Amino acid sequence: MIYLDNNATTKIDDKVLEAMMPYLTTEYANPSSIYNFSKKASNALKESRGIIKDFLNAKDEKEIIFTSCGSESANTAIKGVLNYNKGKKHIITTKVEHPCVLNLYQVLEKQGYKVDYIGVNSNGDLDLEQLEAAINSDTALVSIMWANNETGVIFPIQKISEIIKSKNPETKFFVDAVQVAGKIPMDVQEMGIDLLGISGHKFHAPKGVGALYVNSKTLITPLIVGGHQERGKRAGTENVPYIVGLAKAAELAMDGLKYELTEVKRLRDKLETNILKNIYNSRLNTGVSNRVPNTSNIGFEYVEGELILLHMSDLGICASSGSACTSGSLEPSHVLRAMNVPFTAIHGSIRFSLSRYTTEAEIDYVCEQMPKIIEKITAISPYQDELAALKALKQK
Amino acid sequence: MIYLDNNATTKIDDKVLEAMMPYLTTEYANPSSIYNFSKKASNALKESRGIIKDFLNAKDEKEIIFTSCGSESANTAIKGVLNYNKGKKHIITTKVEHPCVLNLYQVLEKQGYKVDYIGVNSNGDLDLEQLEAAINSDTALVSIMWANNETGVIFPIQKISEIIKSKNPETKFFVDAVQVAGKIPMDVQEMGIDLLGISGHKFHAPKGVGALYVNSKTLITPLIVGGHQERGKRAGTENVPYIVGLAKAAELAMDGLKYELTEVKRLRDKLETNILKNIYNSRLNTGVSNRVPNTSNIGFEYVEGELILLHMSDLGICASSGSACTSGSLEPSHVLRAMNVPFTAIHGSIRFSLSRYTTEAEIDYVCEQMPKIIEKITAISPYQDELAALKALKQK
Repeated sequence: MIYLDNNATTKIDDKVLEAMMPYLTTEYANPSSIYNFSKKASNALKESRGIIKDFLNAKDEKEIIFTSCGSESANTAIKGVLNYNKGKKHIITTKVEHPCVLNLYQVLEKQGYKVDYIGVNSNGDLDLEQLEAAINSDTALVSIMWANNETGVIFPIQKISEIIKSKNPETKFFVDAVQVAGKIPMDVQEMGIDLLGISGHKFHAPKGVGALYVNSKTLITPLIVGGHQERGKRAGTENVPYIVGLAKAAELAMDGLKYELTEVKRLRDKLETNILKNIYNSRLNTGVSNRVPNTSNIGFEYVEGELILLHMSDLGICASSGSACTSGSLEPSHVLRAMNVPFTAIHGSIRFSLSRYTTEAEIDYVCEQMPKIIEKITAISPYQDELAALKALKQK
Repeated sequence: MIYLDNNATTKIDDKVLEAMMPYLTTEYANPSSIYNFSKKASNALKESRGIIKDFLNAKDEKEIIFTSCGSESANTAIKGVLNYNKGKKHIITTKVEHPCVLNLYQVLEKQGYKVDYIGVNSNGDLDLEQLEAAINSDTALVSIMWANNETGVIFPIQKISEIIKSKNPETKFFVDAVQVAGKIPMDVQEMGIDLLGISGHKFHAPKGVGALYVNSKTLITPLIVGGHQERGKRAGTENVPYIVGLAKAAELAMDGLKYELTEVKRLRDKLETNILKNIYNSRLNTGVSNRVPNTSNIGFEYVEGELILLHMSDLGICASSGSACTSGSLEPSHVLRAMNVPFTAIHGSIRFSLSRYTTEAEIDYVCEQMPKIIEKITAISPYQDELAALKALKQK
């Protein structure tokens, strides 16, 4: 099996599992209990919080809230800011946010919020002028992903923060960092971020744990109300094993960042270059630069993405046509639509997302197989005239 | 170590961990993905949902929502019903709910909801007349725990449901079943329950997973909005390993119910009888019947509970003075206060909570040590005259 769908979820690193095991077996105490037996669990929690603080370069451990997933982090941040600032009814986000976040905005619109959706150009880059023009005195929140899950395109977070704060210093800035954690350096202070969400299972921790950074100047209304856990900002007995796993994964991500930025990038570029060179009806759906190092989004013209994926799956190659959350939907990707990817390619677009586990041999195999798969599917496409014209054009 | 704090959290059963391991290692696919690799994960989810359906005797798998904990289950149920029925502003609960749930009601009161808190008698039994009188046409929700976490007292859920539905058939009934799962039989249909929450770590699954039953006639507004997971009622990539663990724990609980109701109960009764017989300044804080089989709440008069727990901890015995969520607080238990436990005993009350792992030898040891611990602490109590009078009274 060759797994090139690491933006959907990742394998738990063996070292992460190893770090978790004591808390899945002997060290099962409730960390809130007062007897000696609970000390190891409560210390592990404290230590993990310190590691996540360092991972994000937060100022204080108190700014870290452990959650159960990226969606909970986003819901806590977005509803938390809005419910704390009841008077303000304006939100700004982008047209290319994760569908989970977009669904939340649709709910908020029904509740009377006005939401502006900032567009992107054909490279996937954000329209910063439109963003600047949209911010006003009623803007409670700007919520923008750090990098897009489908295309890997990185948004200029520091610049965005400067634009926001210069137009309205009271507007809070939430960054969905689910797709950058472990892939590029993160520094919430340098970037001027108020709230930031990450999800463990996107960087080799388990599914079911995440974290939310909320800087000390930002007050939120909690989403899950109850016990004193997480300083009253998130109730529920702490998931000690997964929190320890999240911290271990963060440590490994910090250690492995250079590898990600060089080796993973090299393999991604190799795959991309090969496909673009050897398959005449392929196109890169983004610009080349400003992307996380592991992701490539390639359109195959006049063919169906689902069919490509099934052929790949038969060969044991895993990739996807968009977010896993929208799998099975026949609608073309809202991200690629926002980028005006031509209709001839939008239905046949595939996201390849690598990880530090991806090997050269795997990439070589995929480079070898992709032309065969696409040729087979292209042969049964009803658009043979258009394909012939495209082939002639490319050969020129 | 002797662990008698199973109402705070439990050890993960070895068989539960074994069932989880494939999903923590090789079977890491996102269950929403479309390739073959994800089939095992998505099938495991489906199978687990069926097991939890059987565990609660729900009518349909679609009525089961997986969550990240008991607090999330409660928040989803309570806010979910209220937000779906915006017009109704009246809620009924009890004075002895888990502090996490009570905190949520305090927040709701600030938002304009009227909350009635039903009282209990000195045995810990609920005042059903007060409940009946409180229900009116504006009552959106009645939210009552199935058994109390501190005392183990079981509330008559079926009778409560009948009272609710006869007074206002539209009122929804949420049952916090966190402390009964695995301890007594549960049947949501027979009991007439609309919504019910459970938490895995109270019955030998991990911390960080729970479930919410919502019957097909009850509509709720989701708490965590986003992806299509859990039929749109709870966004977030599913925590497959823990969900599989929750289901395995439910299977084991169903198999082990008879043992719980006979052997665990026998050991609990042995511990209780011994302490009450051998320690003159001890008292049972509840009635003898109508309790979950694993829990005993005993007051030690004129001594401090925290001091008892520290002495126990030094001998490797874990128990608690109330919920773990309120550990460290010096306020006496709100549950024991609602029961009018005399002030002489309320500060010295200890909850012993057993599990299927508790052995006869452990109980014998605790029976042997408790009189020594209490004698030592009693000797330094400032209430020597009162203690002498109590001793004389008991010896009569």
